[in-house]
Amino acid sequence: MRILISNDDGVSAEGIRELAHGMKALGDIYVVAPDRQRSAAGHGITLHKPLYVEEVDLGSGIRAYGVSGTPADCVKIGVNEIMKDTPPDLILSGINQGSNLGNDVMYSGTVSAAIEGAIQGYPSIAVSQCGYKNLDYGPAAAFTVKLVQEVLKQGLLPDTILNVNVPELPANEIKGHKITSLGTRRYHQIYEKRLSPRGTPYYWLAGGLQDLPNEAHTDIEATKDGYISVSPVHFDFTNHDLIDTIKQWNL
Amino acid sequence: MRILISNDDGVSAEGIRELAHGMKALGDIYVVAPDRQRSAAGHGITLHKPLYVEEVDLGSGIRAYGVSGTPADCVKIGVNEIMKDTPPDLILSGINQGSNLGNDVMYSGTVSAAIEGAIQGYPSIAVSQCGYKNLDYGPAAAFTVKLVQEVLKQGLLPDTILNVNVPELPANEIKGHKITSLGTRRYHQIYEKRLSPRGTPYYWLAGGLQDLPNEAHTDIEATKDGYISVSPVHFDFTNHDLIDTIKQWNL
Repeated sequence: MRILISNDDGVSAEGIRELAHGMKALGDIYVVAPDRQRSAAGHGITLHKPLYVEEVDLGSGIRAYGVSGTPADCVKIGVNEIMKDTPPDLILSGINQGSNLGNDVMYSGTVSAAIEGAIQGYPSIAVSQCGYKNLDYGPAAAFTVKLVQEVLKQGLLPDTILNVNVPELPANEIKGHKITSLGTRRYHQIYEKRLSPRGTPYYWLAGGLQDLPNEAHTDIEATKDGYISVSPVHFDFTNHDLIDTIKQWNL
Repeated sequence: MRILISNDDGVSAEGIRELAHGMKALGDIYVVAPDRQRSAAGHGITLHKPLYVEEVDLGSGIRAYGVSGTPADCVKIGVNEIMKDTPPDLILSGINQGSNLGNDVMYSGTVSAAIEGAIQGYPSIAVSQCGYKNLDYGPAAAFTVKLVQEVLKQGLLPDTILNVNVPELPANEIKGHKITSLGTRRYHQIYEKRLSPRGTPYYWLAGGLQDLPNEAHTDIEATKDGYISVSPVHFDFTNHDLIDTIKQWNL
Protein backbone atom coordinates (compact mmCIF):
# COMPACT_ATOMS: atom_id res chain seq x y z
CA MET A 1 0.00 0.00 0.00
CA ARG A 2 1.09 3.57 -0.73
CA ILE A 3 0.00 6.62 1.24
CA LEU A 4 0.52 10.24 0.19
CA ILE A 5 0.75 12.65 3.12
CA SER A 6 0.51 16.45 2.90
CA ASN A 7 -0.30 19.30 5.29
CA ASP A 8 -0.34 23.09 5.53
CA ASP A 9 2.20 23.60 8.32
CA GLY A 10 5.06 22.70 5.97
CA VAL A 11 7.16 19.62 5.29
CA SER A 12 9.33 20.11 8.35
CA ALA A 13 6.47 20.43 10.85
CA GLU A 14 6.41 18.00 13.76
CA GLY A 15 2.84 16.85 13.03
CA ILE A 16 3.52 15.56 9.52
CA ARG A 17 6.68 13.81 10.67
CA GLU A 18 4.82 12.00 13.44
CA LEU A 19 2.05 11.01 11.04
CA ALA A 20 4.53 9.74 8.43
CA HIS A 21 6.39 7.64 10.97
CA GLY A 22 3.13 6.41 12.52
CA MET A 23 1.78 5.25 9.14
CA LYS A 24 4.95 3.42 8.07
CA ALA A 25 3.64 0.12 9.39
CA LEU A 26 0.77 0.27 6.85
CA GLY A 27 2.82 0.76 3.67
CA ASP A 28 5.10 3.04 1.64
CA ILE A 29 4.90 6.66 2.68
CA TYR A 30 5.30 9.63 0.32
CA VAL A 31 5.33 13.06 1.96
CA VAL A 32 4.62 15.96 -0.42
CA ALA A 33 4.06 19.17 1.51
CA PRO A 34 4.60 22.92 1.29
CA ASP A 35 8.21 24.00 1.79
CA ARG A 36 7.02 26.43 4.47
CA GLN A 37 4.06 27.33 6.70
CA ARG A 38 0.93 27.76 4.54
CA SER A 39 -1.80 27.90 7.19
CA ALA A 40 -5.10 29.49 6.14
CA ALA A 41 -4.16 29.02 2.48
CA GLY A 42 -7.70 27.79 1.81
CA HIS A 43 -8.04 25.99 -1.50
CA GLY A 44 -5.66 28.24 -3.41
CA ILE A 45 -3.65 26.76 -6.27
CA THR A 46 -0.68 28.15 -8.16
CA LEU A 47 -1.39 28.98 -11.81
CA HIS A 48 0.70 32.06 -12.51
CA LYS A 49 4.13 30.80 -11.54
CA PRO A 50 5.85 27.43 -11.66
CA LEU A 51 6.46 25.13 -8.68
CA TYR A 52 9.79 24.00 -7.31
CA VAL A 53 10.09 20.53 -5.75
CA GLU A 54 12.96 19.63 -3.43
CA GLU A 55 13.73 16.32 -1.73
CA VAL A 56 13.78 16.50 2.04
CA ASP A 57 15.18 14.00 4.54
CA LEU A 58 12.61 12.85 7.09
CA GLY A 59 14.55 9.67 7.96
CA SER A 60 13.50 5.99 7.96
CA GLY A 61 13.23 5.58 4.19
CA ILE A 62 10.29 7.99 3.91
CA ARG A 63 10.28 9.74 0.53
CA ALA A 64 9.67 13.41 1.28
CA TYR A 65 9.41 16.49 -0.92
CA GLY A 66 8.98 20.20 -0.18
CA VAL A 67 6.96 22.12 -2.79
CA SER A 68 6.91 25.91 -3.29
CA GLY A 69 3.10 25.95 -3.42
CA THR A 70 -0.13 25.55 -1.49
CA PRO A 71 -1.43 22.34 0.12
CA ALA A 72 -3.75 21.75 -2.87
CA ASP A 73 -0.76 22.20 -5.22
CA CYS A 74 1.15 19.57 -3.24
CA VAL A 75 -1.57 16.97 -3.64
CA LYS A 76 -1.98 17.78 -7.34
CA ILE A 77 1.73 17.50 -8.12
CA GLY A 78 2.16 14.60 -5.71
CA VAL A 79 -0.44 12.47 -7.48
CA ASN A 80 0.17 13.61 -11.05
CA GLU A 81 3.95 13.96 -11.16
CA ILE A 82 5.84 12.59 -8.15
CA MET A 83 3.67 9.45 -7.80
CA LYS A 84 2.64 9.30 -11.46
CA ASP A 85 3.81 5.69 -11.85
CA THR A 86 3.03 4.59 -8.29
CA PRO A 87 -0.40 6.06 -7.45
CA PRO A 88 -1.42 6.27 -3.79
CA ASP A 89 -4.18 4.16 -2.22
CA LEU A 90 -5.07 6.93 0.18
CA ILE A 91 -4.26 10.57 0.95
CA LEU A 92 -3.76 12.03 4.42
CA SER A 93 -3.37 15.66 5.43
CA GLY A 94 -1.89 16.61 8.78
CA ILE A 95 -1.41 16.23 11.61
CA ASN A 96 -2.24 19.92 11.78
CA GLN A 97 -1.04 21.99 14.69
CA GLY A 98 -4.37 23.38 15.92
CA SER A 99 -7.98 22.42 15.33
CA ASN A 100 -9.93 22.70 12.05
CA LEU A 101 -13.49 22.78 13.35
CA GLY A 102 -16.87 24.00 12.10
CA ASN A 103 -16.92 26.49 9.26
CA ASP A 104 -13.21 27.15 9.80
CA VAL A 105 -12.67 24.23 7.42
CA MET A 106 -13.33 26.83 4.72
CA TYR A 107 -10.02 28.56 5.48
CA SER A 108 -8.08 25.41 6.23
CA GLY A 109 -5.18 24.37 4.04
CA THR A 110 -5.20 21.02 5.85
CA VAL A 111 -8.77 20.27 4.83
CA SER A 112 -8.29 21.62 1.31
CA ALA A 113 -5.39 19.20 0.73
CA ALA A 114 -7.77 16.35 1.61
CA ILE A 115 -10.53 17.77 -0.61
CA GLU A 116 -8.04 18.04 -3.48
CA GLY A 117 -7.22 14.37 -2.81
CA ALA A 118 -10.89 13.48 -3.25
CA ILE A 119 -11.17 15.62 -6.41
CA GLN A 120 -8.22 13.65 -7.77
CA GLY A 121 -10.18 10.46 -6.99
CA TYR A 122 -8.59 9.09 -3.81
CA PRO A 123 -10.07 8.41 -0.35
CA SER A 124 -8.77 11.29 1.75
CA ILE A 125 -8.63 12.24 5.42
CA ALA A 126 -7.63 15.47 7.20
CA VAL A 127 -6.31 15.18 10.76
CA SER A 128 -5.86 18.04 13.23
CA GLN A 129 -4.63 18.19 16.80
CA CYS A 130 -6.44 20.75 18.97
CA GLY A 131 -4.22 23.12 20.96
CA TYR A 132 -1.12 25.11 20.03
CA LYS A 133 1.86 24.44 22.28
CA ASN A 134 3.79 21.33 23.34
CA LEU A 135 1.33 19.10 21.51
CA ASP A 136 1.45 15.31 21.75
CA TYR A 137 0.61 13.97 18.28
CA GLY A 138 0.71 10.34 19.46
CA PRO A 139 -3.03 9.81 20.08
CA ALA A 140 -3.94 11.45 16.75
CA ALA A 141 -1.44 9.28 14.84
CA ALA A 142 -2.68 6.12 16.58
CA PHE A 143 -6.33 6.89 15.81
CA THR A 144 -5.45 7.67 12.19
CA VAL A 145 -3.86 4.23 11.77
CA LYS A 146 -7.14 2.61 12.87
CA LEU A 147 -9.25 4.97 10.76
CA VAL A 148 -7.20 4.39 7.60
CA GLN A 149 -7.64 0.64 7.89
CA GLU A 150 -11.39 1.04 8.30
CA VAL A 151 -11.65 3.52 5.39
CA LEU A 152 -9.82 1.12 3.10
CA LYS A 153 -12.25 -1.63 4.16
CA GLN A 154 -15.46 0.46 3.95
CA GLY A 155 -14.57 2.88 1.14
CA LEU A 156 -15.57 6.52 0.96
CA LEU A 157 -17.96 8.28 -1.43
CA PRO A 158 -16.00 10.12 -4.15
CA ASP A 159 -17.26 13.55 -3.07
CA THR A 160 -16.62 13.18 0.66
CA ILE A 161 -13.57 13.34 2.90
CA LEU A 162 -13.26 12.74 6.64
CA ASN A 163 -12.22 15.63 8.88
CA VAL A 164 -10.69 14.43 12.16
CA ASN A 165 -9.99 16.61 15.20
CA VAL A 166 -8.30 15.22 18.31
CA PRO A 167 -8.82 16.94 21.67
CA GLU A 168 -5.82 18.27 23.59
CA LEU A 169 -5.78 15.54 26.24
CA PRO A 170 -3.41 12.76 27.31
CA ALA A 171 -4.29 9.49 25.53
CA ASN A 172 -5.85 7.94 28.63
CA GLU A 173 -8.22 10.90 29.12
CA ILE A 174 -9.67 10.82 25.59
CA LYS A 175 -13.18 9.41 25.99
CA GLY A 176 -13.45 7.80 22.54
CA HIS A 177 -14.69 9.16 19.22
CA LYS A 178 -17.90 10.68 17.83
CA ILE A 179 -19.15 11.01 14.25
CA THR A 180 -20.17 14.66 14.05
CA SER A 181 -21.55 17.52 11.96
CA LEU A 182 -19.53 20.70 11.45
CA GLY A 183 -20.53 23.33 14.01
CA THR A 184 -20.55 27.11 13.71
CA ARG A 185 -17.64 29.35 14.57
CA ARG A 186 -17.57 33.11 14.48
CA TYR A 187 -14.72 35.46 15.35
CA HIS A 188 -14.75 38.98 16.68
CA GLN A 189 -13.54 40.60 13.47
CA ILE A 190 -11.21 43.31 14.62
CA TYR A 191 -8.48 44.94 12.57
CA GLU A 192 -5.70 46.55 14.56
CA LYS A 193 -4.26 49.60 12.82
CA ARG A 194 -0.55 50.37 13.29
CA LEU A 195 2.00 52.68 11.68
CA SER A 196 5.24 51.42 10.12
CA PRO A 197 8.51 53.19 11.08
CA ARG A 198 8.06 55.11 7.82
CA GLY A 199 4.54 56.21 8.72
CA THR A 200 2.60 53.83 6.46
CA PRO A 201 -0.56 52.44 8.09
CA TYR A 202 -1.07 48.68 8.14
CA TYR A 203 -3.67 46.37 9.63
CA TRP A 204 -3.44 43.12 11.61
CA LEU A 205 -6.41 40.76 11.71
CA ALA A 206 -6.99 40.38 15.45
CA GLY A 207 -9.98 39.38 17.59
CA GLY A 208 -10.65 36.02 19.21
CA LEU A 209 -13.31 33.36 18.92
CA GLN A 210 -16.88 34.23 19.90
CA ASP A 211 -18.39 31.96 22.52
CA LEU A 212 -21.30 30.55 20.48
CA PRO A 213 -23.54 27.71 21.65
CA ASN A 214 -23.16 24.58 19.51
CA GLU A 215 -25.24 21.43 19.55
CA ALA A 216 -23.91 18.22 21.10
CA HIS A 217 -23.63 16.44 17.73
CA THR A 218 -21.11 18.97 16.37
CA ASP A 219 -17.34 18.61 16.06
CA ILE A 220 -16.87 21.66 18.28
CA GLU A 221 -18.80 20.20 21.21
CA ALA A 222 -17.38 16.68 20.77
CA THR A 223 -13.77 17.85 21.06
CA LYS A 224 -14.69 20.16 23.94
CA ASP A 225 -16.20 17.13 25.71
CA GLY A 226 -13.02 15.07 25.26
CA TYR A 227 -13.93 12.99 22.18
CA ILE A 228 -12.09 12.60 18.90
CA SER A 229 -14.38 14.09 16.24
CA VAL A 230 -14.82 12.55 12.76
CA SER A 231 -16.95 14.63 10.34
CA PRO A 232 -17.86 13.57 6.80
CA VAL A 233 -17.26 16.70 4.70
CA HIS A 234 -18.48 16.86 1.11
CA PHE A 235 -18.08 19.38 -1.63
CA ASP A 236 -21.37 19.39 -3.49
CA PHE A 237 -21.87 23.08 -2.88
CA THR A 238 -25.21 23.48 -4.64
CA ASN A 239 -28.06 24.43 -2.31
CA HIS A 240 -30.56 22.19 -4.11
CA ASP A 241 -33.43 23.18 -1.79
CA LEU A 242 -33.32 26.74 -3.11
CA ILE A 243 -33.45 26.06 -6.83
CA ASP A 244 -37.24 25.92 -7.13
CA THR A 245 -37.65 29.02 -4.96
CA ILE A 246 -35.31 31.11 -7.07
CA LYS A 247 -37.02 29.91 -10.25
CA GLN A 248 -40.03 31.93 -9.04
CA TRP A 249 -38.06 35.17 -8.83
CA ASN A 250 -38.70 37.95 -11.30
CA LEU A 251 -35.46 38.22 -13.28
CA MET B 1 -28.16 51.75 -0.20
CA ARG B 2 -24.51 50.75 0.06
CA ILE B 3 -22.84 48.02 -1.97
CA LEU B 4 -19.38 46.56 -1.30
CA ILE B 5 -17.70 45.19 -4.43
CA SER B 6 -14.64 42.95 -4.48
CA ASN B 7 -13.04 40.49 -6.93
CA ASP B 8 -9.95 38.37 -7.46
CA ASP B 9 -8.60 39.95 -10.65
CA GLY B 10 -7.47 43.02 -8.71
CA VAL B 11 -8.81 46.51 -8.11
CA SER B 12 -7.72 47.81 -11.50
CA ALA B 13 -9.36 45.03 -13.55
CA GLU B 14 -11.86 46.06 -16.21
CA GLY B 15 -14.61 43.77 -14.85
CA ILE B 16 -14.78 45.35 -11.38
CA ARG B 17 -14.73 48.83 -12.87
CA GLU B 18 -17.66 48.04 -15.17
CA LEU B 19 -19.59 46.48 -12.29
CA ALA B 20 -18.95 49.46 -10.00
CA HIS B 21 -20.09 51.94 -12.61
CA GLY B 22 -23.08 49.77 -13.54
CA MET B 23 -24.26 49.58 -9.90
CA LYS B 24 -23.94 53.32 -9.19
CA ALA B 25 -27.59 53.91 -10.01
CA LEU B 26 -28.59 51.66 -7.08
CA GLY B 27 -26.60 53.38 -4.31
CA ASP B 28 -23.18 54.19 -2.85
CA ILE B 29 -20.42 51.96 -4.15
CA TYR B 30 -17.38 50.87 -2.13
CA VAL B 31 -14.75 48.87 -4.01
CA VAL B 32 -12.35 46.89 -1.80
CA ALA B 33 -10.26 44.50 -3.88
CA PRO B 34 -6.81 42.93 -4.05
CA ASP B 35 -4.06 45.30 -5.19
CA ARG B 36 -3.07 42.73 -7.84
CA GLN B 37 -4.25 39.60 -9.64
CA ARG B 38 -5.24 36.94 -7.07
CA SER B 39 -6.97 34.36 -9.26
CA ALA B 40 -7.24 30.85 -7.84
CA ALA B 41 -6.57 32.19 -4.34
CA GLY B 42 -9.38 29.99 -3.04
CA HIS B 43 -10.56 30.97 0.42
CA GLY B 44 -7.12 31.87 1.74
CA ILE B 45 -6.85 34.59 4.38
CA THR B 46 -3.81 36.46 5.66
CA LEU B 47 -2.95 35.73 9.28
CA HIS B 48 0.84 35.85 9.42
CA LYS B 49 1.47 39.31 8.02
CA PRO B 50 -0.40 42.61 8.14
CA LEU B 51 -2.46 44.11 5.31
CA TYR B 52 -1.84 47.40 3.54
CA VAL B 53 -4.80 49.41 2.24
CA GLU B 54 -4.39 52.08 -0.41
CA GLU B 55 -7.00 54.40 -1.95
CA VAL B 56 -7.41 54.01 -5.68
CA ASP B 57 -9.13 56.35 -8.15
CA LEU B 58 -11.84 54.62 -10.17
CA GLY B 59 -13.59 57.91 -11.05
CA SER B 60 -17.23 59.04 -10.62
CA GLY B 61 -17.13 59.35 -6.83
CA ILE B 62 -16.63 55.63 -6.29
CA ARG B 63 -14.68 54.93 -3.10
CA ALA B 64 -12.05 52.35 -4.05
CA TYR B 65 -9.28 50.63 -2.09
CA GLY B 66 -6.53 48.19 -3.04
CA VAL B 67 -5.60 45.67 -0.33
CA SER B 68 -2.39 43.61 -0.13
CA GLY B 69 -4.35 40.42 0.57
CA THR B 70 -6.72 37.78 -0.78
CA PRO B 71 -10.33 38.32 -1.92
CA ALA B 72 -11.59 36.97 1.44
CA ASP B 73 -9.25 39.42 3.25
CA CYS B 74 -10.74 42.28 1.21
CA VAL B 75 -14.29 41.47 2.25
CA LYS B 76 -13.27 41.02 5.89
CA ILE B 77 -11.41 44.32 6.12
CA GLY B 78 -13.98 46.04 3.90
CA VAL B 79 -16.85 45.19 6.21
CA ASN B 80 -15.04 45.40 9.55
CA GLU B 81 -12.72 48.35 9.03
CA ILE B 82 -13.31 50.42 5.89
CA MET B 83 -17.13 50.29 6.14
CA LYS B 84 -17.26 49.85 9.93
CA ASP B 85 -19.58 52.81 10.42
CA THR B 86 -21.46 52.47 7.12
CA PRO B 87 -22.19 48.73 6.70
CA PRO B 88 -23.13 47.47 3.24
CA ASP B 89 -26.58 46.17 2.31
CA LEU B 90 -25.11 43.71 -0.16
CA ILE B 91 -21.77 42.33 -1.33
CA LEU B 92 -20.81 41.66 -4.95
CA SER B 93 -17.73 39.91 -6.29
CA GLY B 94 -16.66 40.33 -9.90
CA ILE B 95 -17.17 40.69 -12.72
CA ASN B 96 -14.57 37.98 -13.07
CA GLN B 97 -12.62 37.59 -16.30
CA GLY B 98 -13.43 33.96 -17.09
CA SER B 99 -16.06 31.53 -15.87
CA ASN B 100 -16.37 30.03 -12.37
CA LEU B 101 -18.39 26.92 -13.10
CA GLY B 102 -18.99 23.55 -11.46
CA ASN B 103 -16.51 22.39 -8.85
CA ASP B 104 -14.06 25.06 -10.00
CA VAL B 105 -15.85 27.34 -7.51
CA MET B 106 -13.62 25.59 -4.95
CA TYR B 107 -10.53 27.34 -6.35
CA SER B 108 -12.24 30.60 -7.14
CA GLY B 109 -11.22 33.77 -5.35
CA THR B 110 -14.30 35.43 -6.86
CA VAL B 111 -16.66 32.95 -5.25
CA SER B 112 -14.75 32.92 -1.97
CA ALA B 113 -15.14 36.69 -1.64
CA ALA B 114 -18.92 36.20 -1.90
CA ILE B 115 -18.85 33.32 0.59
CA GLU B 116 -16.88 35.48 3.02
CA GLY B 117 -19.59 38.11 2.54
CA ALA B 118 -22.22 35.58 3.60
CA ILE B 119 -20.10 34.45 6.57
CA GLN B 120 -19.98 38.10 7.62
CA GLY B 121 -23.77 38.17 7.43
CA TYR B 122 -24.56 39.94 4.15
CA PRO B 123 -26.44 38.79 1.03
CA SER B 124 -23.68 38.11 -1.49
CA ILE B 125 -23.38 37.41 -5.20
CA ALA B 126 -20.43 36.31 -7.36
CA VAL B 127 -20.50 37.27 -11.06
CA SER B 128 -18.26 35.87 -13.78
CA GLN B 129 -18.04 36.50 -17.51
CA CYS B 130 -17.21 33.41 -19.57
CA GLY B 131 -14.35 33.80 -22.05
CA TYR B 132 -10.91 35.35 -21.78
CA LYS B 133 -10.22 38.02 -24.39
CA ASN B 134 -11.95 41.23 -25.51
CA LEU B 135 -14.84 40.56 -23.13
CA ASP B 136 -17.97 42.72 -23.09
CA TYR B 137 -19.00 43.04 -19.43
CA GLY B 138 -22.16 45.01 -20.30
CA PRO B 139 -24.68 42.14 -20.30
CA ALA B 140 -23.28 40.77 -17.00
CA ALA B 141 -23.47 44.19 -15.35
CA ALA B 142 -27.05 44.75 -16.60
CA PHE B 143 -28.21 41.33 -15.33
CA THR B 144 -26.53 41.96 -11.97
CA VAL B 145 -28.50 45.20 -11.52
CA LYS B 146 -31.76 43.26 -11.95
CA LEU B 147 -30.58 40.39 -9.74
CA VAL B 148 -29.49 42.69 -6.92
CA GLN B 149 -32.90 44.35 -6.82
CA GLU B 150 -34.63 40.97 -6.67
CA VAL B 151 -32.23 39.64 -3.98
CA LEU B 152 -32.91 42.67 -1.79
CA LYS B 153 -36.66 42.06 -2.22
CA GLN B 154 -36.59 38.27 -1.70
CA GLY B 155 -33.68 37.93 0.73
CA LEU B 156 -31.12 35.12 0.76
CA LEU B 157 -30.54 32.38 3.32
CA PRO B 158 -27.59 33.26 5.56
CA ASP B 159 -25.54 30.25 4.41
CA THR B 160 -26.09 30.64 0.66
CA ILE B 161 -24.70 32.90 -2.05
CA LEU B 162 -25.60 33.16 -5.72
CA ASN B 163 -22.99 32.26 -8.32
CA VAL B 164 -23.68 33.90 -11.68
CA ASN B 165 -21.96 33.04 -14.98
CA VAL B 166 -22.70 34.93 -18.17
CA PRO B 167 -22.05 33.27 -21.55
CA GLU B 168 -19.65 34.87 -24.02
CA LEU B 169 -22.31 36.18 -26.42
CA PRO B 170 -23.53 39.57 -27.61
CA ALA B 171 -26.45 40.79 -25.45
CA ASN B 172 -29.06 40.06 -28.12
CA GLU B 173 -27.92 36.44 -28.48
CA ILE B 174 -28.21 35.57 -24.77
CA LYS B 175 -31.31 33.39 -24.50
CA GLY B 176 -32.27 34.34 -20.93
CA HIS B 177 -31.28 32.84 -17.57
CA LYS B 178 -31.51 29.47 -15.84
CA ILE B 179 -31.36 28.56 -12.14
CA THR B 180 -28.81 25.73 -12.08
CA SER B 181 -26.85 23.20 -10.04
CA LEU B 182 -23.06 23.18 -10.12
CA GLY B 183 -21.78 20.70 -12.69
CA THR B 184 -18.59 18.65 -12.70
CA ARG B 185 -15.32 19.78 -14.22
CA ARG B 186 -12.12 17.80 -14.43
CA TYR B 187 -8.80 18.81 -15.93
CA HIS B 188 -6.09 16.76 -17.55
CA GLN B 189 -3.61 17.14 -14.70
CA ILE B 190 -0.30 17.50 -16.41
CA TYR B 191 2.83 19.07 -14.96
CA GLU B 192 5.32 20.34 -17.49
CA LYS B 193 8.90 20.02 -16.27
CA ARG B 194 11.45 22.65 -17.36
CA LEU B 195 14.97 23.65 -16.35
CA SER B 196 15.89 27.16 -15.22
CA PRO B 197 18.97 28.82 -16.82
CA ARG B 198 20.84 27.67 -13.72
CA GLY B 199 19.69 24.07 -14.15
CA THR B 200 17.06 23.94 -11.42
CA PRO B 201 13.97 21.94 -12.42
CA TYR B 202 10.56 23.56 -12.05
CA TYR B 203 7.02 22.55 -12.94
CA TRP B 204 4.14 24.34 -14.64
CA LEU B 205 0.58 23.15 -14.08
CA ALA B 206 -0.62 22.55 -17.63
CA GLY B 207 -3.36 20.42 -19.21
CA GLY B 208 -6.77 21.56 -20.40
CA LEU B 209 -10.35 20.83 -19.48
CA GLN B 210 -11.67 17.29 -19.97
CA ASP B 211 -14.77 17.05 -22.11
CA LEU B 212 -17.16 15.56 -19.54
CA PRO B 213 -20.90 15.14 -20.10
CA ASN B 214 -22.97 17.35 -17.80
CA GLU B 215 -26.72 17.33 -17.25
CA ALA B 216 -28.93 20.05 -18.71
CA HIS B 217 -29.74 21.55 -15.30
CA THR B 218 -26.08 22.39 -14.56
CA ASP B 219 -24.34 25.74 -14.82
CA ILE B 220 -21.87 24.29 -17.33
CA GLU B 221 -24.57 23.23 -19.79
CA ALA B 222 -26.69 26.36 -19.29
CA THR B 223 -23.84 28.71 -20.24
CA LYS B 224 -22.83 26.42 -23.12
CA ASP B 225 -26.44 26.68 -24.38
CA GLY B 226 -26.39 30.50 -24.26
CA TYR B 227 -28.15 31.12 -20.93
CA ILE B 228 -26.98 33.16 -17.95
CA SER B 229 -26.55 30.66 -15.09
CA VAL B 230 -27.53 31.44 -11.48
CA SER B 231 -26.55 28.74 -8.94
CA PRO B 232 -27.38 28.86 -5.23
CA VAL B 233 -24.13 27.84 -3.49
CA HIS B 234 -24.09 27.04 0.20
CA PHE B 235 -21.35 26.21 2.64
CA ASP B 236 -22.81 23.63 4.98
CA PHE B 237 -20.11 21.13 4.17
CA THR B 238 -21.29 18.27 6.37
CA ASN B 239 -22.38 15.19 4.43
CA HIS B 240 -25.29 14.49 6.78
CA ASP B 241 -26.35 11.37 4.86
CA LEU B 242 -23.12 9.60 5.83
CA ILE B 243 -23.16 10.18 9.57
CA ASP B 244 -25.24 7.13 10.47
CA THR B 245 -23.22 4.91 8.12
CA ILE B 246 -19.90 5.88 9.66
CA LYS B 247 -21.30 5.38 13.15
CA GLN B 248 -21.41 1.66 12.27
CA TRP B 249 -17.70 1.51 11.46
CA ASN B 250 -15.33 -0.33 13.76
CA LEU B 251 -13.06 2.40 15.16
